[in-house]
Amino acid sequence: MSADLHRAMFAPASVALVGASDVRGKPTARPLEFLRQHGWKGDIFPVNPKRETVLGERTWSSLTDLPTVPDHALILTPADAAVDAVRECAQLGVTVATVVADGFLPGTPDGDRRRRELREIVERSSLRVLGPSSLGVATVASGFAFTGNAAFAEGSLPTGDVFLASQSGSVLGALLSRGAEMGIGFAGMVSVGNEFDISLGEVCLAAVADPAVKSFALFLENISHADDLTAFARAAAERGKPVIAYKLGRSDDGARLSVSHTGALAGDDAVAEAFLRAHGIARVTTFDALLEGQLLARRVPIAPTRSERRIAVVSTTGGGGAMAVDCLAHAGLRVTAPEAATAARLAEIGVDAGHGALVDLTLAGATYDTIKAALDVLLAAPEFDAVVAVPGSSARFTPDVSVKPIVDSADAATPLAVFVVPSAPAALQLLRGSGVPAFRTAEALADAMTAVFNRAPVRAEITAPAPGTDGRTLDEDASYAVFDSVGLAGAPRVILSVDDLPADLPLPAPAVVKVVADQLAHKSDLGGVVLGVADGAGLAAAVSDIRASVGAARPDLTIDRVMVQQMVHGVAEVLIGLRRDADAGPVVVLAAGGVLAEVYHDRSVRMAPVDLDQAQEMIGEVRGLAVAKGFRGAPRGDLDALAEAIVAVSRLAVSTDRVVIEAEANPVLVLREGEGVRAVDAVVTVVEV
Amino acid sequence: MSADLHRAMFAPASVALVGASDVRGKPTARPLEFLRQHGWKGDIFPVNPKRETVLGERTWSSLTDLPTVPDHALILTPADAAVDAVRECAQLGVTVATVVADGFLPGTPDGDRRRRELREIVERSSLRVLGPSSLGVATVASGFAFTGNAAFAEGSLPTGDVFLASQSGSVLGALLSRGAEMGIGFAGMVSVGNEFDISLGEVCLAAVADPAVKSFALFLENISHADDLTAFARAAAERGKPVIAYKLGRSDDGARLSVSHTGALAGDDAVAEAFLRAHGIARVTTFDALLEGQLLARRVPIAPTRSERRIAVVSTTGGGGAMAVDCLAHAGLRVTAPEAATAARLAEIGVDAGHGALVDLTLAGATYDTIKAALDVLLAAPEFDAVVAVPGSSARFTPDVSVKPIVDSADAATPLAVFVVPSAPAALQLLRGSGVPAFRTAEALADAMTAVFNRAPVRAEITAPAPGTDGRTLDEDASYAVFDSVGLAGAPRVILSVDDLPADLPLPAPAVVKVVADQLAHKSDLGGVVLGVADGAGLAAAVSDIRASVGAARPDLTIDRVMVQQMVHGVAEVLIGLRRDADAGPVVVLAAGGVLAEVYHDRSVRMAPVDLDQAQEMIGEVRGLAVAKGFRGAPRGDLDALAEAIVAVSRLAVSTDRVVIEAEANPVLVLREGEGVRAVDAVVTVVEV
Repeated sequence: MSADLHRAMFAPASVALVGASDVRGKPTARPLEFLRQHGWKGDIFPVNPKRETVLGERTWSSLTDLPTVPDHALILTPADAAVDAVRECAQLGVTVATVVADGFLPGTPDGDRRRRELREIVERSSLRVLGPSSLGVATVASGFAFTGNAAFAEGSLPTGDVFLASQSGSVLGALLSRGAEMGIGFAGMVSVGNEFDISLGEVCLAAVADPAVKSFALFLENISHADDLTAFARAAAERGKPVIAYKLGRSDDGARLSVSHTGALAGDDAVAEAFLRAHGIARVTTFDALLEGQLLARRVPIAPTRSERRIAVVSTTGGGGAMAVDCLAHAGLRVTAPEAATAARLAEIGVDAGHGALVDLTLAGATYDTIKAALDVLLAAPEFDAVVAVPGSSARFTPDVSVKPIVDSADAATPLAVFVVPSAPAALQLLRGSGVPAFRTAEALADAMTAVFNRAPVRAEITAPAPGTDGRTLDEDASYAVFDSVGLAGAPRVILSVDDLPADLPLPAPAVVKVVADQLAHKSDLGGVVLGVADGAGLAAAVSDIRASVGAARPDLTIDRVMVQQMVHGVAEVLIGLRRDADAGPVVVLAAGGVLAEVYHDRSVRMAPVDLDQAQEMIGEVRGLAVAKGFRGAPRGDLDALAEAIVAVSRLAVSTDRVVIEAEANPVLVLREGEGVRAVDAVVTVVEV
Repeated sequence: MSADLHRAMFAPASVALVGASDVRGKPTARPLEFLRQHGWKGDIFPVNPKRETVLGERTWSSLTDLPTVPDHALILTPADAAVDAVRECAQLGVTVATVVADGFLPGTPDGDRRRRELREIVERSSLRVLGPSSLGVATVASGFAFTGNAAFAEGSLPTGDVFLASQSGSVLGALLSRGAEMGIGFAGMVSVGNEFDISLGEVCLAAVADPAVKSFALFLENISHADDLTAFARAAAERGKPVIAYKLGRSDDGARLSVSHTGALAGDDAVAEAFLRAHGIARVTTFDALLEGQLLARRVPIAPTRSERRIAVVSTTGGGGAMAVDCLAHAGLRVTAPEAATAARLAEIGVDAGHGALVDLTLAGATYDTIKAALDVLLAAPEFDAVVAVPGSSARFTPDVSVKPIVDSADAATPLAVFVVPSAPAALQLLRGSGVPAFRTAEALADAMTAVFNRAPVRAEITAPAPGTDGRTLDEDASYAVFDSVGLAGAPRVILSVDDLPADLPLPAPAVVKVVADQLAHKSDLGGVVLGVADGAGLAAAVSDIRASVGAARPDLTIDRVMVQQMVHGVAEVLIGLRRDADAGPVVVLAAGGVLAEVYHDRSVRMAPVDLDQAQEMIGEVRGLAVAKGFRGAPRGDLDALAEAIVAVSRLAVSTDRVVIEAEANPVLVLREGEGVRAVDAVVTVVEV
């Protein structure tokens, strides 16, 4: 998005309101009301062919009658009239048109027709379109409330430095009022609607350069226009402007679960999570943390590699401090007691740090001096990556005692966050106004902290070849060959012609005998696999059984080859898969073997390719792999080899020999330490290049 | 607790303030300040030997000088002086003394001494003691703020009908201010401190009869004085006064995990959860839901058996409605679309219910009439157990449109709850004032709804024999006999003398041979178990091996018997255990077999004994048992027999033949449908009676 387009959207010189209503309070009347109410200084041209004036202001009967070409037109009419208005905008050279109407969803005759019409207009002109189904945009400081969202009726809008972009229009208003209550304000707000032309990523990318914007809040329903989001995320990271996202769809996880297909197994939400994380975006799961976490995200740098972060909790209320510790630890964060040197420094100021993870100042006396001194010690202690302060009711009644020392510690290098236990809106606003991340609930604190610590550095640009629409599914032998080519070995195997079997097993017993045929799924179910074959006679019998069973089930197939594969035993088994998400791009999946992944949702997903550190992170996230870590005296598995195998499979995403659409090795047996891993089933779908 | 004691605690005629300070704002001065500020009408006797007056009021130099015996004394002095004051109270015939001082924890010389002194006083008099480490009590309507908690400096206290009891003193103040902000007020509040004499359950039990109390909020650190809690919970259920608890300690779950011992496996927090649930107490995990859930708990009856509840979500904001659906579904609740008849009735009022789980009123027009009509239809629909309404920004700006129809539906038989998406404190207060449960976040809504739906009916009184301190661990054969006696069969087994082995296996092959000896734990690790024995020769070899291995490891043992047991194969394996929690009482545990329970924390805990319905609930909660439910074509396991086995083991808690302290069958194999279950290892610890 050019700077000119960004300016036309958020700081236009003149705007048109197409379909502006004269009925005060109607959504189509509100934009004019709001722009006047909030004192926007630009030129406003209401367009309404049926009236001379709206809300006491002159109207024009059509866009073509306007004295000047507006920079930005807000189209408030129903869908078909909106298409006509967009066409006029294009003809006149309007820079951007925002379409509020619904009625453009694909899959309905009218929706499809309107989309075709809109597409044609956009492709043949320089006009850019926001929406349809956008609730508009706002630039808070200038009073540019270019929206019919009822929330902008607010007496004054909370100015600030957060840029808010939402795929849901109605939520924009809720965040506006919640932000005002929190003391968190906005530089700009945009409801992107259907993202027919201008995407959320594109408009955010343009906002990165805006010096008024210090961080971003995204309300997402899905990941779309991933390339634009990627470009935005990279630019935001370069400028040090953090991004937090709240994304709907967590509850679909379970429903979409299926081991039979890597894609379904991963689940859309898991892919979205992987996408956000790979792009340095903190994904929160509580609505409060989307805004309350903004200041925290600015204070916590994204670590180059993921390591355990240690958090100190210091409190002037025993119960409140315990709540914070409990929530943080339950969220998987590590709350630790001070080390000996730090405890000694605390003892010097009369604070006994000897009772578990919580540094409780209650007994030392919760004076300004004690609290400030304790914060100074903890913030200077090398063992902590963050300090959480938990003031009690004094935050409401005597903020000079318990809140001021926190405010006065705001500039420490170690990030400092606050959970305010009582209702104390003034304390929350004071803290936030001083740049200190402050939270109304321990749950939002733990959520925001987990999300900002989980961010990964924005990864290097990946040029993954675009997959074709159709691929060819290779037979098992050819699929192994693809995995072999990147370094993931299959168990030893030999391909035999069914008409020319050797007298003895060509591999050490026991072996498994499998039918080999293109396009044959579920070969076990068809009797195409015989386990535990011990010798040549067994081999002959197995082949005979396979020909009979598979031949009966699939008379269309020619069964001319079988694979004889050595049966190997691992200390654990996993699934490693690669697939391409239509929106997010290639992902690699590591899942516990067998039915466990399904029953326990036990898997880890990352954008592909990954490096060894990320592969090790994935291994750490699959709980079932505990058995391969020497759990309860079990032999340890070769997890280094597993990490290498994950990297290898993930790199199929960028293979240039062929375009791998999907690849799955399942199971992969993890052998004992030093002995590697072996794939014992494989299926790869490719488009040859 | 007698009615007289309750009156003395919460509605005394006269009180003493022992150690009252003259320094305004000090914790020891505050009770007098607060009582005056809030207009309490009773007689107040400040006691301070060093001053003529405190805060301008006459003081007495000691309790013995008072013109009358006060009903309730608040002891504000340090610990040793507090013991003296308590002694004086006892001598004078004071009804109740509340001790604020710390310094009474067991395990320290001073603490132990003071506890002994306090115990002696309490045992030899009619005086009852609240605390030590209590922050006091309050009866809000009468202005009886008998506490030094800074939060009572509030200009006016939020009167209401919730009774709040807390094991943490400081949290009381936070809940007071949060309640005031929410529009949720209190009939009474109590900080129970160390529960040295008066327990939380006892004081709550006395409050059940108070007509001003409609429901209870408990802030718990642990389950203590379980008998009192049980009596309270039963009385509260009889009077239809619901109880919600927020309990610290969720994050300990993982750390305390160990398969080797049922108790450790269950984890204290899981036992507490089972205890609360068995007593009809809704356990929430967000701080907001403790108060915000009160009205919901009053509206949702406790169902006699647990069944899936179906929830309708109706919204005037698409994004906000989707947030509610997502949070509810993620919490495990079932949000469903209206059935055909209901959808038809919605269509009559212009509402299209055809798009997934959410009933979105945005397109129909969010007028009062539409919203009211849609609520009427959904609240009358037989398929819904609850309806959730989600108003958007209109709740802030035009509550007459979007909030009033909800208020006007407050009396429907079906429970109605609200998630208010924008910041709209007035709407929240209006709703709550009308008795409609209203929530600031979708997370608290989902938490409260899950908690109130999960409540089980208060169970019948269980008279479980009290275990002795020491028990005897039976050998495996005797342990099987205990399980056999209640109906859980072991796999077929024969005990043989090692010196008189038969020539053939006495059971169908293959068999397992195990050493049998009292007090021998970890027999596998010592070489005391040989698997896969096929015939008489194998039996002889196995016995020989066992004698050599176990004899070398434990030369103190006489190895004279072995057990030969038929190896059986199940479709799933589980652990069933009974243990006695020192605080909560007997619990039964069902866990996934093998390392899975440990790796995935996959278990279900209930207070013992359980009935078949509860046993089926437990089976439903152990995710790993999905494999025994015909998952992905696997054969189904005999889950009815498993439920019977769980009931059988749980009934060991009330066995009168012997006191079973602990019993664990692990693994128990679940055979195919109709074939039952078989224990293949067992250990029972008993005290013979």
